[in-house]
Amino acid sequence: MNLVLLTEKELSDGLPLADVRAVHLLGTVGLKVGDSFHIGIKNARRGLATIQATQPVLTFTVKFEDLVQKRIPLTVIVGLPRPQTAKKVLHDLASVGADKIIFFDTEKGDAGYATSSLWKDGEWIEHVIKGAEQACSTQVPEVIRCATLTAALADIKTSSWKVALDPYEATHALGENAPTAPHAVLAIGPERGWSATERALLIKNNFALCHLGDRILRVESAALAGSMIMLSQLKIWEKHRPLAP
Amino acid sequence: MNLVLLTEKELSDGLPLADVRAVHLLGTVGLKVGDSFHIGIKNARRGLATIQATQPVLTFTVKFEDLVQKRIPLTVIVGLPRPQTAKKVLHDLASVGADKIIFFDTEKGDAGYATSSLWKDGEWIEHVIKGAEQACSTQVPEVIRCATLTAALADIKTSSWKVALDPYEATHALGENAPTAPHAVLAIGPERGWSATERALLIKNNFALCHLGDRILRVESAALAGSMIMLSQLKIWEKHRPLAP
Repeated sequence: MNLVLLTEKELSDGLPLADVRAVHLLGTVGLKVGDSFHIGIKNARRGLATIQATQPVLTFTVKFEDLVQKRIPLTVIVGLPRPQTAKKVLHDLASVGADKIIFFDTEKGDAGYATSSLWKDGEWIEHVIKGAEQACSTQVPEVIRCATLTAALADIKTSSWKVALDPYEATHALGENAPTAPHAVLAIGPERGWSATERALLIKNNFALCHLGDRILRVESAALAGSMIMLSQLKIWEKHRPLAP
Repeated sequence: MNLVLLTEKELSDGLPLADVRAVHLLGTVGLKVGDSFHIGIKNARRGLATIQATQPVLTFTVKFEDLVQKRIPLTVIVGLPRPQTAKKVLHDLASVGADKIIFFDTEKGDAGYATSSLWKDGEWIEHVIKGAEQACSTQVPEVIRCATLTAALADIKTSSWKVALDPYEATHALGENAPTAPHAVLAIGPERGWSATERALLIKNNFALCHLGDRILRVESAALAGSMIMLSQLKIWEKHRPLAP
């Protein structure tokens, strides 16, 4: 955890000692009064916290950065994978800074994926939070579940730079063609690949079908690699602004 | 497993039924006599196997591809991470098709990492094998352990396109500058970052210090994303050549 995400209320009240974040900071990392760590308010400012007291709750003062870190103009559409894979996708795309992650139920997917506790009990949120904390970022992706690819496509800007990864029908390698818009949409099929209907829908919606070479990557690896190649092409990465140590 | 890697001997003798690959093919996947699956000989040809018999051992005929899949001109140097992370790096870089992975003991690393069973008992090999099988590739990276970064750098072509990821001292985003040679070397620091000596050594050896934006990625994510961005820039990805289904 490179940064601890808090609510405004936790910031003013302090963290109970049984809170997992307090246990991590005081127990695992071994911080003491006067020590510092990075904190952030979800989708808002981040700053450097200095511990004021460790009893009866963990309290701290915070020197906030002046500017809020920008969101990254990337939406990723993913065919709903098995829960174990979905957790990695949620974490890794949150680390990358995706603005939005849209999962849709696929024609070739397993209906059981949608009813796992990851979705039913809202466990998905902890994976995007952890991904943002890993990235030392306060910006947490919006996560959307759609019943169909059609519904997912209704939720994106039509003017976006749209790429679908498709190792079987791709005409170009990702990276060969320049971005067509300053905001990217990447579509990743389910583990068993796109159905003919889904592929036709992507083409109708002006997605370029691209590949990542002739090696077949796992869904989570393709999502991460595809996102990072598109972001690299968009040239929107600011020079890294590290927080004061 | 998208492909099963075999030795020439296993190809002619067949697989014992207790072999994990036979258990996977017959038990998990449920293949029967007449069914097909992809096989390959490590660093050699791949082909489509058709099951001839499932008793007393699993035997098959193979229709091999004419050409051996090319190796990818990418070497990745990685500061030796904790074993759990090293396993992911080995798998993911094998999937990407890295030609060589060089781990070096870092100044800020933990001496315990080097003595884990992953390295002591040779368990590392199963992770690169699984990565290649995931990728449907027969090409398995060469894996090298070095005591220092100096030793690791002695093992690369000096004329390579050399990039080190360094979120703190980077001057450019990876992807901003064009490749300087048709073979890439990517250097990834340890979890706690490069030491001053290591960084000076990289600069002396003409590594460009690059970042991946202002989000801090895990070592395994940075290794995967950095590799894929460089490969995308090298434009060496052939059009995907899927095996006949």
